[in-house]
Amino acid sequence: MNEEQRNIINTIKLLGIDMISNAKSGHPGIVLGAAPIMYTLFANHLKFDPTNPNWINRDRFVLSAGHGSALLYATLYAAGYGIDIEDIAAFRRLNSKTPGHPEYGVTPGVDMTTGPLGQGFASAVGMAMAEKYLSALVSKEIKKQRLIDHFTYVLCGDGDLMEGITYEAASLAGLYGLGKLIVLYDSNNITLDATKQKTVREDIIKRFSSIGWDIDYVRDGENVTAIDKAIARAKRNMNRPTLIEIRTVIGRGSYNEGTNIVHGSPLSKDDVENLRRNMKMDTKPLEVIEEDIDKFRVIINKRLKKKNALWYEYYDEVKKTNTIGIQKLVSFFEEGNISLNFKAENFKIADNYHEELRESNSKIMNIIAERTPFFLGGSADLGSSCKTNLVKESDYSKSNPLGRNIYYGVREHAMAAITSGLALSGLRPFCSTFLIFADYQKPAIRLATLMNIPVTYIYTHDTIAVGEDGPTHEPVEQLLMLRSIPNMIVYRPADINEVIGSWGTIMENKLPSSLVISKSDLPIIKGTDGTKVKLGGYVVGDASACEGVIISSGSELSLAQKVVEDLNIRGKKIRLVSMPSIEIFKNQSKEYQESVLPPNAKIAVIEASHPYSWTSFTALENIAGVDTFGLSGHKDEVLNHFGFTFQTMLEKMLDIFK
Amino acid sequence: MNEEQRNIINTIKLLGIDMISNAKSGHPGIVLGAAPIMYTLFANHLKFDPTNPNWINRDRFVLSAGHGSALLYATLYAAGYGIDIEDIAAFRRLNSKTPGHPEYGVTPGVDMTTGPLGQGFASAVGMAMAEKYLSALVSKEIKKQRLIDHFTYVLCGDGDLMEGITYEAASLAGLYGLGKLIVLYDSNNITLDATKQKTVREDIIKRFSSIGWDIDYVRDGENVTAIDKAIARAKRNMNRPTLIEIRTVIGRGSYNEGTNIVHGSPLSKDDVENLRRNMKMDTKPLEVIEEDIDKFRVIINKRLKKKNALWYEYYDEVKKTNTIGIQKLVSFFEEGNISLNFKAENFKIADNYHEELRESNSKIMNIIAERTPFFLGGSADLGSSCKTNLVKESDYSKSNPLGRNIYYGVREHAMAAITSGLALSGLRPFCSTFLIFADYQKPAIRLATLMNIPVTYIYTHDTIAVGEDGPTHEPVEQLLMLRSIPNMIVYRPADINEVIGSWGTIMENKLPSSLVISKSDLPIIKGTDGTKVKLGGYVVGDASACEGVIISSGSELSLAQKVVEDLNIRGKKIRLVSMPSIEIFKNQSKEYQESVLPPNAKIAVIEASHPYSWTSFTALENIAGVDTFGLSGHKDEVLNHFGFTFQTMLEKMLDIFK
Repeated sequence: MNEEQRNIINTIKLLGIDMISNAKSGHPGIVLGAAPIMYTLFANHLKFDPTNPNWINRDRFVLSAGHGSALLYATLYAAGYGIDIEDIAAFRRLNSKTPGHPEYGVTPGVDMTTGPLGQGFASAVGMAMAEKYLSALVSKEIKKQRLIDHFTYVLCGDGDLMEGITYEAASLAGLYGLGKLIVLYDSNNITLDATKQKTVREDIIKRFSSIGWDIDYVRDGENVTAIDKAIARAKRNMNRPTLIEIRTVIGRGSYNEGTNIVHGSPLSKDDVENLRRNMKMDTKPLEVIEEDIDKFRVIINKRLKKKNALWYEYYDEVKKTNTIGIQKLVSFFEEGNISLNFKAENFKIADNYHEELRESNSKIMNIIAERTPFFLGGSADLGSSCKTNLVKESDYSKSNPLGRNIYYGVREHAMAAITSGLALSGLRPFCSTFLIFADYQKPAIRLATLMNIPVTYIYTHDTIAVGEDGPTHEPVEQLLMLRSIPNMIVYRPADINEVIGSWGTIMENKLPSSLVISKSDLPIIKGTDGTKVKLGGYVVGDASACEGVIISSGSELSLAQKVVEDLNIRGKKIRLVSMPSIEIFKNQSKEYQESVLPPNAKIAVIEASHPYSWTSFTALENIAGVDTFGLSGHKDEVLNHFGFTFQTMLEKMLDIFK
Repeated sequence: MNEEQRNIINTIKLLGIDMISNAKSGHPGIVLGAAPIMYTLFANHLKFDPTNPNWINRDRFVLSAGHGSALLYATLYAAGYGIDIEDIAAFRRLNSKTPGHPEYGVTPGVDMTTGPLGQGFASAVGMAMAEKYLSALVSKEIKKQRLIDHFTYVLCGDGDLMEGITYEAASLAGLYGLGKLIVLYDSNNITLDATKQKTVREDIIKRFSSIGWDIDYVRDGENVTAIDKAIARAKRNMNRPTLIEIRTVIGRGSYNEGTNIVHGSPLSKDDVENLRRNMKMDTKPLEVIEEDIDKFRVIINKRLKKKNALWYEYYDEVKKTNTIGIQKLVSFFEEGNISLNFKAENFKIADNYHEELRESNSKIMNIIAERTPFFLGGSADLGSSCKTNLVKESDYSKSNPLGRNIYYGVREHAMAAITSGLALSGLRPFCSTFLIFADYQKPAIRLATLMNIPVTYIYTHDTIAVGEDGPTHEPVEQLLMLRSIPNMIVYRPADINEVIGSWGTIMENKLPSSLVISKSDLPIIKGTDGTKVKLGGYVVGDASACEGVIISSGSELSLAQKVVEDLNIRGKKIRLVSMPSIEIFKNQSKEYQESVLPPNAKIAVIEASHPYSWTSFTALENIAGVDTFGLSGHKDEVLNHFGFTFQTMLEKMLDIFK
């Protein structure tokens, strides 16, 4: 590298190191090892606009090795994003713009929340898929369009590549030929605990090429020219995703360079001073030489200013095109508006309607798909069982990026992370599997809810009523798991009316949502109301009965209704409440909540799931649920065993309301 | 195949198909596709003793493609295991020996519960590791021992190989050179939803060889001789695990052979009749020709009877050896006794003891490790942070199978599944990571708890007090997740006394356990008692105060104690209860429970975690917990933000007990 490059890189390195020392917490190893990679990417390749971090045609950059946050913030600061030196000084302090790991929505220039390894890599695959999809969508309107045409870059480490989710997502990226996905692999042979030799013996080139990737290799991670050339080659390869292995030295220049000691704890004061001395940087901690920063910004400006301006001009031209197609696209890009005309109020379902709820859900999903092109998704090899295929749409593939049915294979975890990547690009994606397999997706679900992005998880086969497949396939604690994740909105509709209402609310609220659907054949329930799903819960039938309340949801609502009817015949004034969404109900006014659940009424719950979910409303002993493993048997045998039959439930409720 | 082979294989096929038709539920595709593989393995290779399904030196067989249960049961029946035709007829019915997916402990010959894909493959890696470990352990006592010397076989399908956990586990199997692990890959190019081409484009041979496996290929899955030879070759290869890809036709011989239609639903009556006709089997449904069954058993008997007898003779000889080492091994093999002398009663800790709880835990773990060789484990690259290394022990590796520190790399999910495999072999394994990463392990944890096997998960960094690393690393709903899994016993000790008590209970109870350990520096708490952890919860300090109770656990207990002391000074008679394990406490007599939590006392809880966990004891409004995402900041900033400071908590409790 030349002197100018060295000075800029050293500035980034020292700033990162100072941040960590100042916070007394952080990961110096990656800062010193991977700064030249970040420099090369930002200086010579990344398409971005620091004044418009959400620019729709920016290259995406995902720091999958999220513990490298200090390196990222130092780079973003140097590149001129809206981060100032006070933000840098507040690294890892409460409510700062520079939290411990990169957080989407907190820091300009952070395209995704990362930290748990593998997640960034996998979601970046979704971003690259979204780019291909949106680009093709725009191309339908404008031949040879230049509106959406960007790369997705990932910086990852050894740990990312060990995670199973990374393999799953990489396999899909290879299958889909995501040529605009470029992964920069900071290969330093060290993880937190040990040298890599202790935990991996792989031929990484062979492994990635076996799943459809192109591989490049940079021997010296300080060789900016070699990194630059490798990225340039990767950009020219439009046919396959590229992994560039860049050999670096973790903690380079510090006393313990090349060892795991330098991975995750601040350097000693002495070590930092020595580093500063060796870099010939005569600065105080957190002080930068403005000249170096300026030089970096000049390089970036020179490369991007004119090109970016041309894009904005082009976009302004496009916006003037007054076709419906273009206007819908513009509205999507500007306001995230997906042009969906879907209101629960507009649906009328006959009282004698009767079908599997999965079928009902399928119909509604297909209506939505017909009305907006921004709705797409797929299943982890259970689409035919979850019935979530979009029947009029084609399948997503390398040659058909406009396909809106994504066949994820048996890769539940990557599916969830990719779904996040699609949502981060503005789309309204869904994914589906059996409820039990939500377990495989938990880490990706948690990041989506933390980012509060509009992903929709569809889960069928939602209780022990799965029956024959037995306890390995029968969810018990999974609804509770979903409901206990902050920001997650869980919907468990009881019939087609509530399915309609759930989708209406999901599409309007733009929040992370789980739609939990019974496998069973369910009748329309007398008194359900799709337009009330947006209230979370509501009285079904006679609202004058208010000595007691039975709350229920999903496939148990019809059982609960029969029990309530019988109780009323016996002179007990019990009302039935359908509560498809606990979270939404708890968000209503106290007044509304009390109109549904009168303060003095005794409350019972019927749901074939872990009872903890309902303890906001009543004591555990009033909740008829399931908190042990299911059993293999015919559905009726199993439901009978767990007391989910009319007679047993009636007795239980008589006991509660005695 | 010759006629005899064909007849036996057809018997197995038809029996499997009849079971599915009879149950009106199941997966015929794999039965018809993979029966020749099962035949070849059981007839010519698998070392087993149908009269002693738990024989310690049996080859292990794991059906990772657990939906092939009918094929497995039909094979086990034909091979002479303790399954009769009534069991076969009760396939997928309540409480039968033949549940929907294979269940450990329910069916003789089932070495592991499977169904969720990838899990069987991964746990089999643990079994193969255990074989190497135990074999080496016996070898220390007996040169050239023949006591433990067996293979571990897996039958898996395309779906298994797509799962990330399979990649993680396979990478470790390659690293450890598990030559006695042989995977039979039923390669039929079909998954539930689609042909494989839609979801995978991989060079599987290259992929597995890149991670240290040997690969073999059988072009025709009906060619018993070719399958036989491939298995024989794999057995000779002691240096690397082997994957044998066997090309089969899913649902072979049925109308829809080779398509996904035949994967997961019973064949039509007509289809079954046609199949029977083509096989020239003149039998009724569920009827078998005894002659064919007998022939299968004769083949097996001829191969195994003498060899097995020799082993039993040898074992009887070994048992007579009166050295302590041998006697301990025999006691382990016969009774699962790990010869651990560890009682909480025997530890005395000074009142002024003060250290990070992780350090305390490390000391106790090392004492256990010193006292029994059957205790081993590792970490997913956080051993140095969780402090779970066994300091006097060496590292497990290809050349050092006696190593008791396993470096799993960043592979939390495979780690959990491998830990199950170790436990299924009788060992008492542990694994460690941060609590937040329990999310990555959930599917494997659930199977371990369903099997009710003695695995111990150690989780550190257990609350928002993680601080600087921020919300991606701060558990909120994870304790609840663990506590809501049936059969799981969660321990959250408050100081070294309770750490000792937790380990004592864990080692005695032999149940799936999670030991959740604070990252913080914690003092000995006045009044804690390690010997009472086995009761789940107990009164700390003054038991006469009984108007109200504050329950707490882990790092919050010292805060709770300060609050209780202040409340008592203010004249409120509030007692403090430490509850390291909710599950154990709920298992105590009503009398004991009421002696700790007086029926009329108001109960409050302080725990920096999702409050649903505690709703067995009190209403949600009396629980001071955390149910939103954490924040990045200094530990004290974060705890302050969430109200976990003396003053805020005191006010909250004053409000509750007003």
